[in-house]
Amino acid sequence: MRLKFLLGEIVTMRMNCGLPGLALAFGLATAAHAVQGTARFDFTDEQEAHAEALAETALDSDLAWDILESLTTEVGPRLGGSPQEAVAREWAVRMLEANGFSNVRIEPFDMPYWERGPLHVELTAPFPQRLYATDLGGSASGPEGGIDAGIAFFDSFDDLQQSPGGNSLNGMVVYIDDRMVAAQTGAGYGPANDKRRFGWLEAQARGATALLIRSVGTDSHRMPHTGTISTPNATSELSQAARDYLDAEYPDYLENPARSRIPAIALSGPDADQVERIHEMGETMRVRIDANSGWQETAQSGNVVGEIPGTDLADEIILIGAHLDSWDEGTGAVDDGAGVAIVTAAARLIADAGDAPRRTIRVVLFGAEEVGLLGAFAYARENAGEIGNIVLASESDFGAGPVWWFSSGVSDEATPVFDAIGRNITELGIIRGDRNARGGGPDIIPLAMAGVPVFRLEQVGTDYFDLHHTPDDTLDKVDPDALAQNVAAWAATVYLAAQADTDFRTQDE
Amino acid sequence: MRLKFLLGEIVTMRMNCGLPGLALAFGLATAAHAVQGTARFDFTDEQEAHAEALAETALDSDLAWDILESLTTEVGPRLGGSPQEAVAREWAVRMLEANGFSNVRIEPFDMPYWERGPLHVELTAPFPQRLYATDLGGSASGPEGGIDAGIAFFDSFDDLQQSPGGNSLNGMVVYIDDRMVAAQTGAGYGPANDKRRFGWLEAQARGATALLIRSVGTDSHRMPHTGTISTPNATSELSQAARDYLDAEYPDYLENPARSRIPAIALSGPDADQVERIHEMGETMRVRIDANSGWQETAQSGNVVGEIPGTDLADEIILIGAHLDSWDEGTGAVDDGAGVAIVTAAARLIADAGDAPRRTIRVVLFGAEEVGLLGAFAYARENAGEIGNIVLASESDFGAGPVWWFSSGVSDEATPVFDAIGRNITELGIIRGDRNARGGGPDIIPLAMAGVPVFRLEQVGTDYFDLHHTPDDTLDKVDPDALAQNVAAWAATVYLAAQADTDFRTQDE
Repeated sequence: MRLKFLLGEIVTMRMNCGLPGLALAFGLATAAHAVQGTARFDFTDEQEAHAEALAETALDSDLAWDILESLTTEVGPRLGGSPQEAVAREWAVRMLEANGFSNVRIEPFDMPYWERGPLHVELTAPFPQRLYATDLGGSASGPEGGIDAGIAFFDSFDDLQQSPGGNSLNGMVVYIDDRMVAAQTGAGYGPANDKRRFGWLEAQARGATALLIRSVGTDSHRMPHTGTISTPNATSELSQAARDYLDAEYPDYLENPARSRIPAIALSGPDADQVERIHEMGETMRVRIDANSGWQETAQSGNVVGEIPGTDLADEIILIGAHLDSWDEGTGAVDDGAGVAIVTAAARLIADAGDAPRRTIRVVLFGAEEVGLLGAFAYARENAGEIGNIVLASESDFGAGPVWWFSSGVSDEATPVFDAIGRNITELGIIRGDRNARGGGPDIIPLAMAGVPVFRLEQVGTDYFDLHHTPDDTLDKVDPDALAQNVAAWAATVYLAAQADTDFRTQDE
Repeated sequence: MRLKFLLGEIVTMRMNCGLPGLALAFGLATAAHAVQGTARFDFTDEQEAHAEALAETALDSDLAWDILESLTTEVGPRLGGSPQEAVAREWAVRMLEANGFSNVRIEPFDMPYWERGPLHVELTAPFPQRLYATDLGGSASGPEGGIDAGIAFFDSFDDLQQSPGGNSLNGMVVYIDDRMVAAQTGAGYGPANDKRRFGWLEAQARGATALLIRSVGTDSHRMPHTGTISTPNATSELSQAARDYLDAEYPDYLENPARSRIPAIALSGPDADQVERIHEMGETMRVRIDANSGWQETAQSGNVVGEIPGTDLADEIILIGAHLDSWDEGTGAVDDGAGVAIVTAAARLIADAGDAPRRTIRVVLFGAEEVGLLGAFAYARENAGEIGNIVLASESDFGAGPVWWFSSGVSDEATPVFDAIGRNITELGIIRGDRNARGGGPDIIPLAMAGVPVFRLEQVGTDYFDLHHTPDDTLDKVDPDALAQNVAAWAATVYLAAQADTDFRTQDE
């Protein structure tokens, strides 16, 4: 829609101004048609017309919105492993069956279950006031009677890692500031996330009693961002002090996850501003923390699966996914109810449109993504024998903004097929992007690691981290038009990929 | 600044297009210079130059920002009657003294004190999920063990008032939807506020066990808006059912305030959306409420006063105010730290600029405004003997948006003086507005009722109710440039009013 507008602009420019407009249009066409030294691939006119009709149907359809509204209203929050996530699985089975999917099933798995308890954080000196805070997933509860300690302020995670080891922060509460940068690609998330992932371990290794961080997120509301902390492995980027501590205190951490023994807590942006301001005044701060989250008994989660059966290539599976679980403080509208709605609606619209897909389209709604891709790893493990049949995989898990970038990571033979798909979705405002992409979305990581080819329909994420992992992740934040554009892009892409005469897998040498 | 830009636009139009631009400029000039059938008043060139220099100094000054930053950081939340409000009074005394004010003093008064306790609201059927909610000021705690009841849904406060009285809602929880409309003037607040003021009484009169309302506010964040409920008087607009109930249950309510016996609670916008959606599905809802707020022992509050002494008209007082208290969930940056900063900085800049004011400028930082204008009424009561000396009064209490509208409610003789002031602040983007205004701001109401002339520098309030009475009322929401524009408008206005040869008071017939 956006590019259609842009092309309209170019036509106007050409009419008004002559050559420059033409040159610009030509430049665009050249970029869109570029191939990487391999033969051009074209879909048939019938296939292209069918894909276009599918996209147009999707743009006019309320199906994804209705699915999203139902999930966020009738299920609401659905933390991985919680009873509410089980309610979501039952909802998903009913929803997939009602939408005509075949072989609808839950593939259950067991998982460690962490649950949020009440949290109270209060600055006690020099200027007593409550701070708005939330436990990070995997945070430990504090000692009976709470923590009352001085704050050790660090501008960045790197500063903390560079600080002396041993008991250098004995009894203190570590605070890490670091601001996330907003970007269309969401590229600020990774760097900002380091403190969330291993801040607890660097703090604990230095004798700290708790970790506070500025929320990983880009909004300025009084709603802290949660998200899970990480368990280290052999390649985790830790300071030597943390690595030494880990070896001493968690000797079997490569087999059994090393869990935090201290509360790990995010402050909202305005509260982090307050802490930063008081620090800059040269004041020493004290904080009181009453934290009550922690690990519970092993719980059950599950992946919910449904299929649109293929025809002559039915044994080749195109897996399109999203994750069904959400954080517990919002209703999981953008993360990842939107993805559930988008991939489900796209598959249903393909099934409804006639010209049955040659390959099987499998929708997988993963469980327990937020708490460590547990559904994704369970899926790859439990379906290991069948992974060779999964010829292509992708996930929608970046909110409900419009798709703007279309990347692929498939064989040289199949790359021109994706170029051709790119030409067919360009009118939706989508740029044909990387041809050597390695990612298909978080839950696709284990499949990609096992060699499954991937593609991705990247969404505009400039505002995504205003909502992601906060109580504010609710239905009203979703733009129905952008949601429908996603469905159009997925429906056209998946339909065309399902029909193409090609082998997506990288051929052995 | 804004009008300067607009005038620049007009000049450009005139240069490009001739006559229409000229006509528009002429039209503007006519409107700005209009007088209401009385003689034109002009300040001297020296006075006008001094006012302009004051405004320019204010636009470049960080003084208001520094005051606001200090208050919101070093005091933070300061609920009327709370220990933290006492901290704010001590802060205010230090701050006024440091800024060179004379006769700095606290004028204490006693007040009934309401305190927030923990609150938990959860939809239990048909779709169990937590709701983000806050107690309204004056809300009662619920029964031991909480409330578990069905929801009676009302689209509007009017619908509730029209519904049968008696025990028609026995044991139920009343929910009132009603959405507030955003407007530059904030005009949507009054109508939307009716449900907050007397919803408790209409619900209680029908046997309900609790009141839930959609937050009075215009944002879409998961942060409910608090605000105080009202105690009825003889002229309150109540249904006959509520009036009958009041007569029976609170026979002495005209002497002793009738207080709510049920919890009165606001839901955030997205949570209200959820309730509305489920209602529209035709589902019956149940809710669990654990509410623990309530009235405490009588507490002390106080108004903090400081002065810039006048010269030849020193016994005539221009009172400019703001309120020092805030709600307890934000840090009171826009409501009303901004007002504290604006009027204090304006008075200080006047004192610093030479040409000492003829009239005395008195800054009053009122206590306990949010909980019922208690400081304002105490001020008028305790200073009753001196009210005749207060020749003009105004308050800044509508956030930190730029001033756009300048109204006055003074004698016919003094109205041209305000027209002249209007001409002097028009370059700040301010329109000369009503000449028969009756309001000078909430805390000025008791003075205006006693005949004190008023003016008002109205601010753009389109976004004010996104923040007002929420946890999100924090420093980062304030635009320093808009804050400085306020100070410029107040400094120029108050300086000129202090110098004018006129009698602001309405003459007796």
